[in-house]
Amino acid sequence: MPTYRLDLAYDGSGFHGYARQPGLRTIQGDLEEALFAHTGTIETVAAGRTDKGVHATAQVISFKTAAAINPARVMKSLNRRLAPAIAIQSLESVRHDFDARFSAVGRSYRYLVLCRTAPDPFLAATSWHYPRALDRSAMNEAAKHFLGLHDFASLCRKASGRSTIRTVHKAEWAEVGSDLLEFGVEASSFCHQMVRSMVAICVDAGRGKIEAAGVPEMLAARARHGGRGAAPAHGLTLVGVTYENRESRVENRGG
Amino acid sequence: MPTYRLDLAYDGSGFHGYARQPGLRTIQGDLEEALFAHTGTIETVAAGRTDKGVHATAQVISFKTAAAINPARVMKSLNRRLAPAIAIQSLESVRHDFDARFSAVGRSYRYLVLCRTAPDPFLAATSWHYPRALDRSAMNEAAKHFLGLHDFASLCRKASGRSTIRTVHKAEWAEVGSDLLEFGVEASSFCHQMVRSMVAICVDAGRGKIEAAGVPEMLAARARHGGRGAAPAHGLTLVGVTYENRESRVENRGG
Repeated sequence: MPTYRLDLAYDGSGFHGYARQPGLRTIQGDLEEALFAHTGTIETVAAGRTDKGVHATAQVISFKTAAAINPARVMKSLNRRLAPAIAIQSLESVRHDFDARFSAVGRSYRYLVLCRTAPDPFLAATSWHYPRALDRSAMNEAAKHFLGLHDFASLCRKASGRSTIRTVHKAEWAEVGSDLLEFGVEASSFCHQMVRSMVAICVDAGRGKIEAAGVPEMLAARARHGGRGAAPAHGLTLVGVTYENRESRVENRGG
Repeated sequence: MPTYRLDLAYDGSGFHGYARQPGLRTIQGDLEEALFAHTGTIETVAAGRTDKGVHATAQVISFKTAAAINPARVMKSLNRRLAPAIAIQSLESVRHDFDARFSAVGRSYRYLVLCRTAPDPFLAATSWHYPRALDRSAMNEAAKHFLGLHDFASLCRKASGRSTIRTVHKAEWAEVGSDLLEFGVEASSFCHQMVRSMVAICVDAGRGKIEAAGVPEMLAARARHGGRGAAPAHGLTLVGVTYENRESRVENRGG
């Protein structure tokens, strides 16, 4: 059966996360319902199963269907059917062995913290409003301890036997606007709540509650209580997924 | 009575415009209700009475009250009471003759147009999604005819005897993101729907429906039918108000 790659962006505010759940509104639920008209029942696979309240500018989905579909036309139809909170960015036919989740070699997330007294209505849905100043260099001191290969069990919720060893390629705080800090983090993959746990630790360092030098010890504890909880979900956005072979894409063939 | 200047930002999506209207939710209505606890009944004056659906990052309000208020404390209280769509940026005591509307010598607006097939959920509330490419140089050709002193009657809704002569200091389209065009416009003041009418004309020029060279003739018609209607309200944001004497500000004195 032909395989398709679908790239989409969503504001996760009104959803119970990406993954389909009975009786709850989810991104996957809305998407598969919109696809149904073109493909009938299908199973979609996502690069990152984002939590309740988490957003995406560049989520990647794959699915197989025997239905003859014209990608450009289906993309337009999906964008008409879906709520404005979900927007298909592209839809294309790809190699049969493409799997949005297992073919992915990297994921990038962004976390925004607005650190000033006055809130910003235009950032309320996508950033954590932290009403005090933060020391960005202390936050970067803390963040650099996440770089490289570690067992991140201290930062992962419900590890349940699966490996919590990951390699982090980037973990850096930048000032991207007036009092707006952005944490950019990249790894092959992340375990559950790992990015939000990193953010909580960095913010604790930035407000002087902990020493950045104490982070390696937290990681070494390899148990959830070693961490500092998790920052709020709504500050987090999946901003990129990397695949090894861009050549895995084939021409859109229409239906 | 002491006079106060209040700067605020709002996402106008869920409101029937800035100005108070009986039975409808408005920015002014929500704001005066939140202020009531501190000042009792008051009358506020705004630099720009934005239309239904229009946003602001930098609206300016003034009011007088005999109540002893601590600006920093009142600002925090207001931000707790108000919906996340409205956020007070600052509140300070100012000279008695300060009037947010009549002391203002300039207003700046921004209009965003996202011109590509795929919508963007994060820009859905604040930009006009125009699903085709636009010729930005043609749009700037059209826009330059707005510069300077003109009678803008062709671009103003319900002039009703009031002067429609204005001086425009800036009217320019810039590309501020991937397929995202921003119209930046500045004048001493604007008549009703003037910016959105300018945008409609520029977009018609950008899609090749009209010639930019025809704009002076539209203005010369000095009648509403000379224009091209108005672009949607939700792409428009009040981004700045200028006052002659920044020195008109006095120290916050508390209450």
